Amino acid sequence: MSSNYRNFRNSVPWLIILLEAAFIILFYVSGLGSDVSESIISYPAFQDVNHMMIFGFGFFLTFLKRYRFSSTGFNLLIVVLGVQCSVLIEVVLAFFLQSRIEDGLKRITEAVVSMTAVVISTGAVLGKTNPVQLILMTVVEVLVFRLSRWINTIFLQVPDNIGMMHVHLFGAYFGLAVSSRFSEPSPKSEKNASTPKSDLLSMLGTLFLWVFWPSFNSVLAVDSKSKAIYNTYFALAVSAVTAFVLSVLTTKDGKFRMSHIHSAVLAGGVAVGYAAHSIEYPWIAMILGLLASVITILGSYCLQRCFNATLKIHDSSGVHFAFGLPAVLGAVAQVILFVIKNWTNLTSLGFFAMIHIGTFCFTISVALVTGFITGLILNLKLFKTTPVSKYFEDQIYWE
Amino acid sequence: MSSNYRNFRNSVPWLIILLEAAFIILFYVSGLGSDVSESIISYPAFQDVNHMMIFGFGFFLTFLKRYRFSSTGFNLLIVVLGVQCSVLIEVVLAFFLQSRIEDGLKRITEAVVSMTAVVISTGAVLGKTNPVQLILMTVVEVLVFRLSRWINTIFLQVPDNIGMMHVHLFGAYFGLAVSSRFSEPSPKSEKNASTPKSDLLSMLGTLFLWVFWPSFNSVLAVDSKSKAIYNTYFALAVSAVTAFVLSVLTTKDGKFRMSHIHSAVLAGGVAVGYAAHSIEYPWIAMILGLLASVITILGSYCLQRCFNATLKIHDSSGVHFAFGLPAVLGAVAQVILFVIKNWTNLTSLGFFAMIHIGTFCFTISVALVTGFITGLILNLKLFKTTPVSKYFEDQIYWE
Amino acid sequence: MSSNYRNFRNSVPWLIILLEAAFIILFYVSGLGSDVSESIISYPAFQDVNHMMIFGFGFFLTFLKRYRFSSTGFNLLIVVLGVQCSVLIEVVLAFFLQSRIEDGLKRITEAVVSMTAVVISTGAVLGKTNPVQLILMTVVEVLVFRLSRWINTIFLQVPDNIGMMHVHLFGAYFGLAVSSRFSEPSPKSEKNASTPKSDLLSMLGTLFLWVFWPSFNSVLAVDSKSKAIYNTYFALAVSAVTAFVLSVLTTKDGKFRMSHIHSAVLAGGVAVGYAAHSIEYPWIAMILGLLASVITILGSYCLQRCFNATLKIHDSSGVHFAFGLPAVLGAVAQVILFVIKNWTNLTSLGFFAMIHIGTFCFTISVALVTGFITGLILNLKLFKTTPVSKYFEDQIYWE
Repeated sequence: MSSNYRNFRNSVPWLIILLEAAFIILFYVSGLGSDVSESIISYPAFQDVNHMMIFGFGFFLTFLKRYRFSSTGFNLLIVVLGVQCSVLIEVVLAFFLQSRIEDGLKRITEAVVSMTAVVISTGAVLGKTNPVQLILMTVVEVLVFRLSRWINTIFLQVPDNIGMMHVHLFGAYFGLAVSSRFSEPSPKSEKNASTPKSDLLSMLGTLFLWVFWPSFNSVLAVDSKSKAIYNTYFALAVSAVTAFVLSVLTTKDGKFRMSHIHSAVLAGGVAVGYAAHSIEYPWIAMILGLLASVITILGSYCLQRCFNATLKIHDSSGVHFAFGLPAVLGAVAQVILFVIKNWTNLTSLGFFAMIHIGTFCFTISVALVTGFITGLILNLKLFKTTPVSKYFEDQIYWE
Repeated sequence: MSSNYRNFRNSVPWLIILLEAAFIILFYVSGLGSDVSESIISYPAFQDVNHMMIFGFGFFLTFLKRYRFSSTGFNLLIVVLGVQCSVLIEVVLAFFLQSRIEDGLKRITEAVVSMTAVVISTGAVLGKTNPVQLILMTVVEVLVFRLSRWINTIFLQVPDNIGMMHVHLFGAYFGLAVSSRFSEPSPKSEKNASTPKSDLLSMLGTLFLWVFWPSFNSVLAVDSKSKAIYNTYFALAVSAVTAFVLSVLTTKDGKFRMSHIHSAVLAGGVAVGYAAHSIEYPWIAMILGLLASVITILGSYCLQRCFNATLKIHDSSGVHFAFGLPAVLGAVAQVILFVIKNWTNLTSLGFFAMIHIGTFCFTISVALVTGFITGLILNLKLFKTTPVSKYFEDQIYWE
Repeated sequence: MSSNYRNFRNSVPWLIILLEAAFIILFYVSGLGSDVSESIISYPAFQDVNHMMIFGFGFFLTFLKRYRFSSTGFNLLIVVLGVQCSVLIEVVLAFFLQSRIEDGLKRITEAVVSMTAVVISTGAVLGKTNPVQLILMTVVEVLVFRLSRWINTIFLQVPDNIGMMHVHLFGAYFGLAVSSRFSEPSPKSEKNASTPKSDLLSMLGTLFLWVFWPSFNSVLAVDSKSKAIYNTYFALAVSAVTAFVLSVLTTKDGKFRMSHIHSAVLAGGVAVGYAAHSIEYPWIAMILGLLASVITILGSYCLQRCFNATLKIHDSSGVHFAFGLPAVLGAVAQVILFVIKNWTNLTSLGFFAMIHIGTFCFTISVALVTGFITGLILNLKLFKTTPVSKYFEDQIYWE
């Protein structure tokens, strides 16, 4: 225990200082300026997304009764580190590819949106990692996700705003793969539970995410912003309704379960992300929202019983069914919608369908493989993994 | 008890599924598209109103100590159901009247704004209805309120953005009429109370509503948006100040009472809603805010002692004085302001004053009559009313 | 005790009524209209700042375990009183100086921004003043801060949007000077402490402030708004990172301390306020954010041990290091950046550097002197100061 403290004290600050110093020096070297030009992103839209990431996800993850300081605190820490890292990668990439650099606000907005992947991944390992591991995971994941998006854009010619929507998929499966390398908490652990109070606090975060999700799905859309907003709203609405229905149907005594509501109300927004700007009729978005919510709750029912138990994966916040499965559904739906829309033009159809499927498979493979490797590295003795008995515990990190 | 559970499990999900399926099919049949055109509503303004409804009212209603999950959860459920229902009614109405259909964002914004009526009504029966009753009430109220607005627009030629401001009036009196048909909780019930913690959570919701109220009053205004914002801000400011003053003067030992603050700080915003876009001088808005806050707190003092006791109406969140009375004041003030402004032109004066008064009386009558009928229907054996001993209790619905 | 109650009941409402009546009459006399013209301030930007003041600061100050009602409630009360007072002063000033009056929204926005000074000052005396004292302090501080800004604009020719950024500096030192006249709470008092729950609630407010700080720094900027947003974001990001590092390094057993995070994550935003619109490279903002966070945490370490103990100043929320020191740093940095930028032009350099330093010294002196005098006045027998044993206690004011 005391050696763990010492280790914590010894390594965390120096790792962060090192990183932050590197960031500042690289910002300096890169000569990146605070440009004055009008951005194509509206400031209120950026603000919404920023609010989601810092506040919404911060409180969304506070459902563990003894891990609330860490949930909100570490979320802030990794988001701000990740955003800086992400902006830097963008600048370096622009330098090597000789491509035009985005305007300032767009740069941060993209960085914030891509941080969703990391935040979702931390959900899978919530309470099991120490800050050093979290920070390393953040840096690696930001890097790998950018790489995966870059390959998608260059080799598969996916527009970057679509590629960005893989953020939930990538985050969920990367997180799961990392989580598979951590020891499972003892099933009798009473710390791995929520209280009504922490559930309510998590509801607060969830409602924030719910309200701002249309902004998330439309912020990077080049055109059809209002379409994306409209479709996302209806998908979210139907998935909220479905969440309530299925919660009653799947719980033993026919009551609502708060954790179902938390994870399933957002499923529609995740699933509709890929196609929000191209769906022509709201009823399609509504069906997508319905399906997303169904697979989330059935997923939570089945996965926790069978899949996770077999594979020995412990998924603290259920990101697999809250973000992973709806994102898979969304990706599949996008292809189906595309096929239906263009079924007359068979030559281009096959090509584009292949590309969509390719992007999807590529992203998920990269997430799983790199996540697994990251998990292995993070469990090296060097990083003094938190002992299982200290999982889900604020006291080890906070006064 | 167990039969109640079974009933709950049996009916809630099927009712919701039926409704949701009907919505999706009707959306499909109506051929409603996700139009691309630029909306006349700005997205941030819609976002504010959406945030108020989902988050603000959700937490505003969490003051009951054992009913916090239901307050936020059911609020989300009925808002999303109501919005879909409302959009559909709009489409059907546009089809039959051959009128031009609004753009997508305006459609949802109007639907969200008109949901205020339902949310206020649920405040009156908070903790006493089961979800089936809540959902039925939502559908009926959305329908009736739209009908009442339609009659106002067609026969009394009230502009729709003014007619919409009757939302508080309608919601409060409909809710009261429904509530009059439910059994009163035993006055000794300790569950019908707040704790400092739940009061603080409710304060969180209240402050949200307070901050966003200028958006609410200006979002549908066709012009003079900035005037509406300005006047609403000052009305809210003065009613906040007055709330503190009167709270000290009316409590026994001269302390502030949190529930006074909750209900009275918003009174100014409600009262000024009708006239916000036409008031020329902020001092008029300020006096309106002052009067609104005064009648709210005096109302809470008198109504709870005399009126409610005589009529056997139990008003869980005090929507009568928090929204009903200020709305009445606002409607009266609008007429008075109109008369003062146009007193030279006697012919048109009488006509317009009559119309305003007519709209007001018509709306309130419709609310009371239909609310009463709805209350009767909801208390049929069919809907297995929650027994009085289970009022204000999350446990009956939530794990 | 009972005499205290009586006094409270007797004086608070009448003082507020008097003030409010004066405000309404003055608004009437001034003939101030709710103008229709398009504002140069965007409504969402105003909304952000308003949200920060009412909600963000309201919950930022809820860290005292038994003073949460008062923190949020009195914050609302003084903000709305202060804003009205501030708008009136503006109108009177415009009348006497024959200057053009601002448009409606700009007027309120400036009033809300300048209320930051008062809110920060109340942080220093949090839990020690009664409402009468708070309200008087608000009125005096709003007046004096406007006067100080006016002198800065007229005699030192500082643009008003820069002068406004002295708001943190003024607020912190005014609050400290007032606080020095109040008796210190007994160091053993267990009420002057936070619980994990109140800390989390305060974190909620802090994250709100963090997210909206770029709006605060850019809302009044005439041009280079996007630059101000960009630089503020990076300064905030680095100060959040640094807060975590230094918290580990300064606490005894190397854990994070929530109160460090609360105060230091915002330091970057405060420090960069003066120069946000003129910094050319984000790395400069980042270094500023880093330094701000460092002096905040080291300040909290040293000041609480030495400075405050010697001078017998008790600073309830640590506004000295959370807002005062970063503001000093920001003011110094602004001069240094200015000198570096213009070092070739020696004649104008000296002149402008002197003006910046002059403004800074003048503002801080005015704050200290008037704060001290206000503190003396507030401690007159007339205002029945709260006895030390009743410090940090909601029960004395709330049911």
